[in-house]
Amino acid sequence: MPMKLLKQLCEIHAPSGNEVAMTKFLLSYIAKEKKKWKVKPEVFSGDEFQDCILLKFGKPRTAIFAHIDSIGFTVRYFNQLLPIGSPDAEMGTRLVGEDSLGPIECELEFDKDHHAFYKFGRQIDRGTDLTYKINFRDTKDFIQSPYLDNRLGVYNALKVAETLKDGVIVFSCWEEHGGGSVPYLAKFMYENWNVRQALVSDITWVSDGVEHGKGVAISMRDRNLPRRSFVDRIIAIAKKRKIDHQLEVEGMGSSDGRELQTSAYPIDWCFVGAPEKDAHSPHEKVHKHDIDTMIKLYTVLMKDL
Amino acid sequence: MPMKLLKQLCEIHAPSGNEVAMTKFLLSYIAKEKKKWKVKPEVFSGDEFQDCILLKFGKPRTAIFAHIDSIGFTVRYFNQLLPIGSPDAEMGTRLVGEDSLGPIECELEFDKDHHAFYKFGRQIDRGTDLTYKINFRDTKDFIQSPYLDNRLGVYNALKVAETLKDGVIVFSCWEEHGGGSVPYLAKFMYENWNVRQALVSDITWVSDGVEHGKGVAISMRDRNLPRRSFVDRIIAIAKKRKIDHQLEVEGMGSSDGRELQTSAYPIDWCFVGAPEKDAHSPHEKVHKHDIDTMIKLYTVLMKDL
Amino acid sequence: MPMKLLKQLCEIHAPSGNEVAMTKFLLSYIAKEKKKWKVKPEVFSGDEFQDCILLKFGKPRTAIFAHIDSIGFTVRYFNQLLPIGSPDAEMGTRLVGEDSLGPIECELEFDKDHHAFYKFGRQIDRGTDLTYKINFRDTKDFIQSPYLDNRLGVYNALKVAETLKDGVIVFSCWEEHGGGSVPYLAKFMYENWNVRQALVSDITWVSDGVEHGKGVAISMRDRNLPRRSFVDRIIAIAKKRKIDHQLEVEGMGSSDGRELQTSAYPIDWCFVGAPEKDAHSPHEKVHKHDIDTMIKLYTVLMKDL
Repeated sequence: MPMKLLKQLCEIHAPSGNEVAMTKFLLSYIAKEKKKWKVKPEVFSGDEFQDCILLKFGKPRTAIFAHIDSIGFTVRYFNQLLPIGSPDAEMGTRLVGEDSLGPIECELEFDKDHHAFYKFGRQIDRGTDLTYKINFRDTKDFIQSPYLDNRLGVYNALKVAETLKDGVIVFSCWEEHGGGSVPYLAKFMYENWNVRQALVSDITWVSDGVEHGKGVAISMRDRNLPRRSFVDRIIAIAKKRKIDHQLEVEGMGSSDGRELQTSAYPIDWCFVGAPEKDAHSPHEKVHKHDIDTMIKLYTVLMKDL
Repeated sequence: MPMKLLKQLCEIHAPSGNEVAMTKFLLSYIAKEKKKWKVKPEVFSGDEFQDCILLKFGKPRTAIFAHIDSIGFTVRYFNQLLPIGSPDAEMGTRLVGEDSLGPIECELEFDKDHHAFYKFGRQIDRGTDLTYKINFRDTKDFIQSPYLDNRLGVYNALKVAETLKDGVIVFSCWEEHGGGSVPYLAKFMYENWNVRQALVSDITWVSDGVEHGKGVAISMRDRNLPRRSFVDRIIAIAKKRKIDHQLEVEGMGSSDGRELQTSAYPIDWCFVGAPEKDAHSPHEKVHKHDIDTMIKLYTVLMKDL
Repeated sequence: MPMKLLKQLCEIHAPSGNEVAMTKFLLSYIAKEKKKWKVKPEVFSGDEFQDCILLKFGKPRTAIFAHIDSIGFTVRYFNQLLPIGSPDAEMGTRLVGEDSLGPIECELEFDKDHHAFYKFGRQIDRGTDLTYKINFRDTKDFIQSPYLDNRLGVYNALKVAETLKDGVIVFSCWEEHGGGSVPYLAKFMYENWNVRQALVSDITWVSDGVEHGKGVAISMRDRNLPRRSFVDRIIAIAKKRKIDHQLEVEGMGSSDGRELQTSAYPIDWCFVGAPEKDAHSPHEKVHKHDIDTMIKLYTVLMKDL
């Protein structure tokens, strides 16, 4: 089952600020799998990277940024919940986590002001973080699961890694909740390898201009404006290589691209990713053709850029 | 006609993220004109500066920051438009640009929710950026045109360049739409030349405390608070040199100064610029006396600071 | 009277952007007092640090950040006032400052739209900054005064300094109004001493989960999410050392931790501070037990972390 890895990634509890379980999984996966990869990358992780990981392949010109954190909730006082990022879930959604008393599976509730609460047989420790219980649905055309944003972006990076010759893959943290790792990751790759081009491997939205099954989306802008000349080069490569794609133009939404834009390094960036329905809900849904074309486009972009 | 250069600058299509036409114009203008300048500056441009330019004169202590981008619109889906920065234009405003089918001159429309649209004989390519059609009006006392913000700030920098002995002139990008170039420009000038003082050459607002024709505005604060001791030095120089000026105190508005403030370098900054009416509209209007005193004040500040 | 130093700190006029009086006081205090400290720190101040100060003790692993600025008001035009940070004061509050005509003690007023004004016998110079008149109240259990946020954070740092062996103490600026010094301070301490751990010595809120007199608050999150593994280490030390503390979990509020989070350095941070009632008002009130436990917890954290 080719989507086994994606399912595994979705099942890992890694809300923003507490990504350590994902970091451990990835380090172990990479240690095992890289033997089969065309080029064995140098792996950078540890305290100087907090819970982030960089993989350096060959002589890199371009970096892939895939954030490993997810949205979720933090337990506040009494039965109150605070959002991590911007979760969008209905009453009754199952939330999971663990505190000093053991594993938790509780239920999400809202009051009339849309404040979030949990319903559980006991009090949960302050500060405990909760994520959606995973229900991974694999049908003929679609994958549906919580956290396709951004486990699919991570999956894409790992697939591209198999054949990558020159490039950097960056697994970043905190993207869903204000960021904080991209500035030092950008600094590291720029200062050490002079890498000035970045692709943001993340998931976008089905909208009135971007549909399911029409190919990976190349985002010409969201809340941030990437440099036009860089975006144009990416579109030209997608056309030349005849990879099915859609052009996205949005005024809202953000990504690791925002922090690359405002970093102290002249790094061009572009968001390239499959579109999904029901973003940040437990029912994120992506078309398989858009996953395929995402991997294909990244593979050629890392060669041609 | 002394305002020929200003008119040329206004006519260049350079919305945030797509400043390349302005960059080319400036590089060519500088290459030609610098022979007549008192000091020939070193010119820094190219990929490591994206579409920005730095000019280094002599032994610099102070930098002038002038952003070269403008507000505008991006074509979204169907006939929808998204703002670049904060345009403020009435129904029927003429917008210009170019896409794969050729030059465009279309009309701005709004629906009842103030969403922007274009009216044109054909569909325009997704992601095409549009700017106001230029109508440059030069009367006895006033200049009126779209994009005096910030082509006048650029013009000021180029005028000051003619006699500048020691200093840096920085042409920055993306100012109107969240920034992104100032952090690396500040880094470059701080690390290479230890420059820790900056003047933001930009255009501000006529308000209940700042009038047309009363002289250049020295901004004591906007949304950001520059360091008081630096602002006081600038005011003292303006007084001592008897240059007509007005003190501005605002709670809103921002500039390249914001990014200098939050950069990882201890750079003092102050916004010094002529005030205009109808900011970000196609009818930006500045008094000529305020332009004259802007150039005069910058000229002495670059000596005395 | 042990709170004499705290009272002195509260009385210094140092709104964001104009911290120079506090800087001078601290430099003079440190020059005099450090002779009695267990370790004499290296002192870093001057133009390359604007109005900030760093103290380096021994071989540092952890830094204490205490911001020295306060909220206040700036005089705009006529009798208008603009906020510096987020002041929260009632009509009639006494405000003090100084302009070209001499010392000022005026009264705060509001119109029906809650715009702020001053009432005074004469016009005040544009750009003059005003702060609350100090009324320092020292009772059996409580200290009440304007600006316990953050003169108490500064006081804590100075108390910890007396016995500190290894560590950095950072006095930062602009925290109440968007920041701007932490990025270069973080850069300096990371690049020079490889310090990657920070404690934010600041004052938080009494809330439905954090009470007066129950011990210093360890903040597990506010608007920003510190790295979970770092916060857990701090809680473990507080427990092991049996220091009375409370766990805070908030969705709002921010501190110097925000700028550490988004800096280009992988610095772990945690907000640890006494809670107060009536934040940003002239009546900020803190329990003495929470001050004592704050100093005690910082003292052990600087050893154990």
